[in-house]
Amino acid sequence: MPVGLSPPENILPVKGVQLATAVAGIKRNHQPDVVLLTFGPNTVCAGVFTRNAFSAAPVVVAKNHLAQAATRALLINSGNANAGTGKQGMINAQQCCALVAGAIGCAENQVLPFSTGVIGQDLPMDKMADAIRQLPDKLAADAWLQAASGIMTTDTVAKACSRTLDVDGTDVTISGMAKGSGMIRPDMATMLAFIVTDAAVDRQWLQSSLESAVNASFNSITVDGDTSTNDACILAATGASGSRQLDGSCENSEAFKNALDEVLIQLAQSIIRDGEGATKFVTVNVQSAVSCDEAKQVAYTIAHSPLVKTALFASDPNWGRILAAVGRAGVDNLDINDIRIYLDEVCIVSQGGRDQAYVESMGQKVMDQEEITIRVILDRGDEQATVWTTDLSYDYVKINAEYRT
Amino acid sequence: MPVGLSPPENILPVKGVQLATAVAGIKRNHQPDVVLLTFGPNTVCAGVFTRNAFSAAPVVVAKNHLAQAATRALLINSGNANAGTGKQGMINAQQCCALVAGAIGCAENQVLPFSTGVIGQDLPMDKMADAIRQLPDKLAADAWLQAASGIMTTDTVAKACSRTLDVDGTDVTISGMAKGSGMIRPDMATMLAFIVTDAAVDRQWLQSSLESAVNASFNSITVDGDTSTNDACILAATGASGSRQLDGSCENSEAFKNALDEVLIQLAQSIIRDGEGATKFVTVNVQSAVSCDEAKQVAYTIAHSPLVKTALFASDPNWGRILAAVGRAGVDNLDINDIRIYLDEVCIVSQGGRDQAYVESMGQKVMDQEEITIRVILDRGDEQATVWTTDLSYDYVKINAEYRT
Repeated sequence: MPVGLSPPENILPVKGVQLATAVAGIKRNHQPDVVLLTFGPNTVCAGVFTRNAFSAAPVVVAKNHLAQAATRALLINSGNANAGTGKQGMINAQQCCALVAGAIGCAENQVLPFSTGVIGQDLPMDKMADAIRQLPDKLAADAWLQAASGIMTTDTVAKACSRTLDVDGTDVTISGMAKGSGMIRPDMATMLAFIVTDAAVDRQWLQSSLESAVNASFNSITVDGDTSTNDACILAATGASGSRQLDGSCENSEAFKNALDEVLIQLAQSIIRDGEGATKFVTVNVQSAVSCDEAKQVAYTIAHSPLVKTALFASDPNWGRILAAVGRAGVDNLDINDIRIYLDEVCIVSQGGRDQAYVESMGQKVMDQEEITIRVILDRGDEQATVWTTDLSYDYVKINAEYRT
Repeated sequence: MPVGLSPPENILPVKGVQLATAVAGIKRNHQPDVVLLTFGPNTVCAGVFTRNAFSAAPVVVAKNHLAQAATRALLINSGNANAGTGKQGMINAQQCCALVAGAIGCAENQVLPFSTGVIGQDLPMDKMADAIRQLPDKLAADAWLQAASGIMTTDTVAKACSRTLDVDGTDVTISGMAKGSGMIRPDMATMLAFIVTDAAVDRQWLQSSLESAVNASFNSITVDGDTSTNDACILAATGASGSRQLDGSCENSEAFKNALDEVLIQLAQSIIRDGEGATKFVTVNVQSAVSCDEAKQVAYTIAHSPLVKTALFASDPNWGRILAAVGRAGVDNLDINDIRIYLDEVCIVSQGGRDQAYVESMGQKVMDQEEITIRVILDRGDEQATVWTTDLSYDYVKINAEYRT
């Protein structure tokens, strides 16, 4: 059961974008597993991709195509990651783009391919070809919920959200969807996320806005510390709203950036709320660090600790494990006497040990909640970072032990 | 059930060393939980301690005492780590030393204290005092097995072993014991290990030999990536065998070093075999790296991956997860086409993807074993590293979720 997360109810269509889904039969549950997004002709696109050296074939192809031409379509399949598939994987990813290009009438390099699922198995190209053939007739502006379901793997809930804003009197919409539940510690972007707006946006500023938003959202979550081979996040701006162009130079740009940040943070948090086996939604906030990197390093050390995560699962205020994680985070010259650690508003650690006012019942009350904030004040500087994570439950082990059976 | 590990049958006494155990009632199972080792007057001692910034009070005291005086006794309690206990923790650790010093007749700073167990609770000093009072009368040269049991916490099997060697016609013995099962990713030494020899050894060379042996043993294992606040490894040389002094300058020194390495590696591997919830004993060997650090970084990334560990638990040859872990290990300019990955002797990855000769049944056969070697050949240099680890099972979650209940 996801933590405080319901399926999205209403995702707003975005002018200049159509979506379609089909059942290729790659996922075993016979649910839609191939998704197509098509964009109008003036669309500009930005992308952020995994830093895993074993990038999947579709990641390599998508990066190349994004650099070569104006993107007109995204093709996503779930159930098979087309990763660790060597030369055949590259051939298959290219072939998928060619099939889409033929079906909708554009150049091959105007199509970006994405895959998510099991690593190391060849993409079944006959099934892909059958599905791609069905897609053009199904394209619709309001198929967001079906698309968000179509990109799911171990996700239990579809993840999508929308925001609207006014740009000098023009209504502008941002809608996005994401998938991801395990193998989540994005080093660049999460598993897969696709965000679309009908604002007109300068290409360079679109890319920098995406990178900044990804840093505060998908690059601030972790389920298990495993960075996927297939992580990708795409932001497309169709310009079809007729808005004036946003390039970072006006107040409208700032409002757009804030709305974009909100969409990405909501999607990123949805991934954590639906994390494999998650029973808790945990915010780890590290304050008063010398640098953002230092704050994030401490936050991730806590968020990755199997001992902290199993204590969270057990609702056990075993705060010593949080203290031990802070201590091994690799921060130079850490003065443990200056550090304070809080569970929500309850101070658990000060002056190098248990806070004098702390009693177990205070920690227990916080740990019994589904949503918990662990706050660490290092008292070394002015920077901070926030990371969102889950607990480590029997179900995490079960899901990942039985993933291929 | 530990993997391929039985309780030790016969640990050799070491001249100049006596051991005793007592029940303080800190551990709930009413098994011995306080252990004393005493050394003869000419003993020299070396030590390696945790790098966790939140070092436990006994670690701080032991380091100070080791630097100040010739060590005559080690006092170890299990069930309470005396960590995260602030000033009171320091007072209690000092008081333990004073009680031992009074009981056996030496100076307070000739006693090194060690604690392992729950973090953040004050040491019950009345129970400790009662137990310490009982210890001197119980001292015996052949109490190694009882002592090895007395330092256990979540360990299911006592861990100890012995080696003998000939030093210019003199019989020399090395015996050691260790405890540890979870919170195991020593950054310096494992939870607790105590090794004693009756060889005469130069103090400086004893310390350097210990550091080198720790690097290849306790610093090459991981259960869960969590570095404890209480890690410590002590090596004492009593000189009571009457052997000539070893200082690194002769062949005897080399033989001693080899025997010491064997003892530490066996103890370190025992900790992994008895890792919390372990059903597999996994050797991760990374070869042809530019540096040892690079090899260890890749090996630890594999060994810490929850996805690799759950696949190992399921005996699932989901080699894509190993490939993904190598890819995210943070090695600069990794050419994935040069990398080969093996499960035992089965090549699973070459030329950027699944090896052409690989079929699932080959990987399945290896994964069905209790003991598995994952070997990665980076093809970048001449250095290598080996790390030992376990799988991630339901029982790991169970043990750590229920640790304090």
